[in-house]
Amino acid sequence: MKKVAIIMGSDSDLPVAEKVSTALAELGVPYEAHVFSAHRTPEEAAAFAAGARKNGFGAIVAIAGLAAHLAGALAARTTLPVVGVPCKGGAFNGLDALLSTVQMPSGIPVATVAVDGGRNAALLCAQILAVSDEALAAKLDALRKEEAEKVLAKNAAVEQKLNG
Amino acid sequence: MKKVAIIMGSDSDLPVAEKVSTALAELGVPYEAHVFSAHRTPEEAAAFAAGARKNGFGAIVAIAGLAAHLAGALAARTTLPVVGVPCKGGAFNGLDALLSTVQMPSGIPVATVAVDGGRNAALLCAQILAVSDEALAAKLDALRKEEAEKVLAKNAAVEQKLNG
Amino acid sequence: MKKVAIIMGSDSDLPVAEKVSTALAELGVPYEAHVFSAHRTPEEAAAFAAGARKNGFGAIVAIAGLAAHLAGALAARTTLPVVGVPCKGGAFNGLDALLSTVQMPSGIPVATVAVDGGRNAALLCAQILAVSDEALAAKLDALRKEEAEKVLAKNAAVEQKLNG
Amino acid sequence: MKKVAIIMGSDSDLPVAEKVSTALAELGVPYEAHVFSAHRTPEEAAAFAAGARKNGFGAIVAIAGLAAHLAGALAARTTLPVVGVPCKGGAFNGLDALLSTVQMPSGIPVATVAVDGGRNAALLCAQILAVSDEALAAKLDALRKEEAEKVLAKNAAVEQKLNG
Amino acid sequence: MKKVAIIMGSDSDLPVAEKVSTALAELGVPYEAHVFSAHRTPEEAAAFAAGARKNGFGAIVAIAGLAAHLAGALAARTTLPVVGVPCKGGAFNGLDALLSTVQMPSGIPVATVAVDGGRNAALLCAQILAVSDEALAAKLDALRKEEAEKVLAKNAAVEQKLNG
Amino acid sequence: MKKVAIIMGSDSDLPVAEKVSTALAELGVPYEAHVFSAHRTPEEAAAFAAGARKNGFGAIVAIAGLAAHLAGALAARTTLPVVGVPCKGGAFNGLDALLSTVQMPSGIPVATVAVDGGRNAALLCAQILAVSDEALAAKLDALRKEEAEKVLAKNAAVEQKLNG
Amino acid sequence: MKKVAIIMGSDSDLPVAEKVSTALAELGVPYEAHVFSAHRTPEEAAAFAAGARKNGFGAIVAIAGLAAHLAGALAARTTLPVVGVPCKGGAFNGLDALLSTVQMPSGIPVATVAVDGGRNAALLCAQILAVSDEALAAKLDALRKEEAEKVLAKNAAVEQKLNG
Amino acid sequence: MKKVAIIMGSDSDLPVAEKVSTALAELGVPYEAHVFSAHRTPEEAAAFAAGARKNGFGAIVAIAGLAAHLAGALAARTTLPVVGVPCKGGAFNGLDALLSTVQMPSGIPVATVAVDGGRNAALLCAQILAVSDEALAAKLDALRKEEAEKVLAKNAAVEQKLNG
Repeated sequence: MKKVAIIMGSDSDLPVAEKVSTALAELGVPYEAHVFSAHRTPEEAAAFAAGARKNGFGAIVAIAGLAAHLAGALAARTTLPVVGVPCKGGAFNGLDALLSTVQMPSGIPVATVAVDGGRNAALLCAQILAVSDEALAAKLDALRKEEAEKVLAKNAAVEQKLNG
Repeated sequence: MKKVAIIMGSDSDLPVAEKVSTALAELGVPYEAHVFSAHRTPEEAAAFAAGARKNGFGAIVAIAGLAAHLAGALAARTTLPVVGVPCKGGAFNGLDALLSTVQMPSGIPVATVAVDGGRNAALLCAQILAVSDEALAAKLDALRKEEAEKVLAKNAAVEQKLNG
Repeated sequence: MKKVAIIMGSDSDLPVAEKVSTALAELGVPYEAHVFSAHRTPEEAAAFAAGARKNGFGAIVAIAGLAAHLAGALAARTTLPVVGVPCKGGAFNGLDALLSTVQMPSGIPVATVAVDGGRNAALLCAQILAVSDEALAAKLDALRKEEAEKVLAKNAAVEQKLNG
Repeated sequence: MKKVAIIMGSDSDLPVAEKVSTALAELGVPYEAHVFSAHRTPEEAAAFAAGARKNGFGAIVAIAGLAAHLAGALAARTTLPVVGVPCKGGAFNGLDALLSTVQMPSGIPVATVAVDGGRNAALLCAQILAVSDEALAAKLDALRKEEAEKVLAKNAAVEQKLNG
Repeated sequence: MKKVAIIMGSDSDLPVAEKVSTALAELGVPYEAHVFSAHRTPEEAAAFAAGARKNGFGAIVAIAGLAAHLAGALAARTTLPVVGVPCKGGAFNGLDALLSTVQMPSGIPVATVAVDGGRNAALLCAQILAVSDEALAAKLDALRKEEAEKVLAKNAAVEQKLNG
Repeated sequence: MKKVAIIMGSDSDLPVAEKVSTALAELGVPYEAHVFSAHRTPEEAAAFAAGARKNGFGAIVAIAGLAAHLAGALAARTTLPVVGVPCKGGAFNGLDALLSTVQMPSGIPVATVAVDGGRNAALLCAQILAVSDEALAAKLDALRKEEAEKVLAKNAAVEQKLNG
Repeated sequence: MKKVAIIMGSDSDLPVAEKVSTALAELGVPYEAHVFSAHRTPEEAAAFAAGARKNGFGAIVAIAGLAAHLAGALAARTTLPVVGVPCKGGAFNGLDALLSTVQMPSGIPVATVAVDGGRNAALLCAQILAVSDEALAAKLDALRKEEAEKVLAKNAAVEQKLNG
Repeated sequence: MKKVAIIMGSDSDLPVAEKVSTALAELGVPYEAHVFSAHRTPEEAAAFAAGARKNGFGAIVAIAGLAAHLAGALAARTTLPVVGVPCKGGAFNGLDALLSTVQMPSGIPVATVAVDGGRNAALLCAQILAVSDEALAAKLDALRKEEAEKVLAKNAAVEQKLNG
């Protein structure tokens, strides 16, 4: 199976990155994690993205806050799907990161998920790989069912508690 | 090749949908377009999404404005990648649609692109299909080069005009 | 008397749901509480809404945060009044939930109250039921008077304290 | 059948009020329209609301822009359901009116709909009256079906046009 | 000297009201404080404002949060200057209160100060009374000088600390 | 009677200034208008404010857009009441000007009115002067009555038109 | 004298770039203009910035809209001052571009000016070069005087017109 | 070498000022720190700025929150580069300060950095001085390399931790 790259702009983004890695591990999707800053180590970030397809990656998750250029900077060097996770740090609680990540100019898309949405970034990468991988698609369907059952269990508990 | 579904919430979203279909056609990616409202025809929307994978689709583009629930409603019924395009109509110029599309709860990702970003939605779908399709990846790389050359041509023109 | 349904998108919305149930109990309005996610258990949510009128409900309160589609998803399946309570969780403090709940397209209204406004959602449901129930209308008028008297008592205390 | 009151804060809100009256007329719901300003004619506004229930009204629609206090000012004098329609005029495109209408303090709910959402305000009033009026509920269900069929017709047209 | 009225929408606004009363006391400006809610005790609020001029008031401070209608509701019943203090409580940190207070329609001004700006509301009232009261104007000028001297003392301390 | 100063930051603010002068003329309040920029002619702006009280002014209206520092810059040099009118020009439709005008630090209040609210700025100045001028207070009360009658006339017209 | 580089992200930014070049020409500051996209021609943008100091540049103006990464991408490759001009295009009127330009992470500053503020970007570059160039500083001082005189002339005209 | 002036609007901005002084000290750039309020000590602020160039300063950092006029007030009196640091205090988390600082009118630029971005303000001043100071430029380049190496070290640690 192709790997997913998890790229953080700073190691302060580690808690979000761990949400990504945990969900990928749960689904058996291989991954590699790195810290590359779009601004402090631009060459390393660019080189990683440029080589990602031939190095066996199928999707890249970019995690960054503030003027979050990381996802766009990676997307500029590869035609692999890049999933952007805007982070919450700083004065504007992630609005800056969201707009910096999602409002990409025509030609260079970034697949943006919710602020701090590490788990959904992982699921989206798995869904991308599952387009051509039926076993993984089946795992994703099974996970959905489990999550639905958890909601139904909570429903049962709440019906008990609130209506009792 | 797997098809891309282009789903509009309303036929007022047609200009954005045509940006999607034009770019897909340019890349030779097959597609189908539909109008399904998450609120006015929820059954049809749900049924389409639930059957999309077995009907040969590899990705879904959902185009909607205002309280844009369409992408999320489709994503709730399939584990195919769903790309959300928030639209600009209404009092808040698409901020409502952007937040309604991107801030999905954990478990159900939507790959959100810029407001009215129809062309990038198409490119993202092509990038997703290209993860397992080298010929399409090559086309995407070629398109990137063409777009870079257009920028360089504009650069030459501007250098002439502004520095002359 | 017709019942009020209290639907949460997640059991993390329980504190807001309890504000609803407390106020309904105070007024003697019967209710039922459930956890149904618009995205994780869409079928259950749809089925509940579709059957709500014939199951004796007169109004539905939908409580959800983030890209809060729950109120709209329920409203799409019933012509009972649906009251939406946007919740505060996440990076944008409920702005995403407010816009996702209130900016509904023409044809499918959601009666939206303030962020985390569980008590007002309950009162609104009671006011809806009271349109054809004079006894309940009288209870609501009495409650208003009590609340006015509390304000006047606070006024008396403040006049004492600040002007003393 | 009980009547719906349509109250505008200014006659510049007339286009939105006409969306309300048109939809109510379509459904056979009786209505009365007035211009009462929360700030320029506060006594008239207050008196109208205080007498609305005994004057045969079942719901009130309040339409106002800017610091839109009208819905709240009416809601403060009646326990009838008050539906607030924030309007778009002014520098902030209705964000001021939306927040002024929806963020009501505990005790006095306003059922807020989308900015300029006149038609949905009418439908919501009809839904409120229909809680105890099966014939009106049937009309609302029929209207929903018609609107769904319009979407399906548009779908057919788009399938023709975009996929042809 | 004319008095200043300090009206709170709720006794949760007391800390802001105390900033007003403290500053007025400092300047020897007489005041009265009350809790009147624009929505829960609208008659009392209206009656107070309608009688304020003849009861010896020269200005009114209105302190409220959320959909802060209090300043506007008072201003609608008097031609005395009404100073609005938007408060910070709730999901939007006072943005709702600011817009609800400042964006008044033509004809009924509210003199709005910063969110939670109780001290400045008091100073503004004193400045209003001082237009025809030279002794109060002199006190205000003296207070300005004191505050400037405090800044200069801080400057001296910082020059010592940071440049030492 | 004391005069009102109308200070614009730029002559592009003239339409708003004319709303101020028209309303003051209507009420017989004397005024003087000037263009002083807080940034391009800071000395002139400061000198004007510093001398305003002894030159017979009772209030100052400051009209400015963008990073609207004018009201604050004038308020820093006088203890006369300064009324700030934020203007709409530029990318943010006056949100920048509103926040720059209203969010003054403790010690230096600015009485802020709505974006482009020239007429209300004039009325507020008249209300300030009327605190010690019964004739002007009577004129203001009369104007309020006229405006209320206009609303009632519009009400009559709308009742005719919409309910006919 | 060192040159100023004017870099646009797209030739749609030309009108803003011409405001920069006009002001630089007015002050006799040499410049070069280019179109380099941070995303479509990232190598060219990076190479230009990396070589800018040794190629005789003293400052760089970066002009871009939407997820405006250009200023940051250039700043990441040089320690020359980079002045960012956020542009207004797109759904959010430049708020996205402003936040993407100004909220840079620690280590890589961008000197951000107002949305579409091309003239101020030019003046800022001139001010930067003038730190070590007295003749240019004198020109800037003279220009300030001219602009002040223009304001005073407008003041004279307005005094005539509005007070006449 | 020319000095950098660090001007705070209030001593509550000291923590941000210390980020500036620390970074300047690290680079061997001389500085002076002062507290001058644009509103409480406007004369002192103006006089400082007016004399800054001849007193040996090469750049000024202005640190302020709320309606942050300080940077603009200083920039109005000098043609030295003024770097504005908007601060986070108050209800709007620095959005007010950002817009008040960056949205300067044409003619008077302020070089704005991120909210609370003291370190970047210092680096930007150093970059400005380094335009004509090769030794300082070399130090800045060395600092960039050190920071890149820190990121690479973090990368190594994360690769170990997350992929182990």
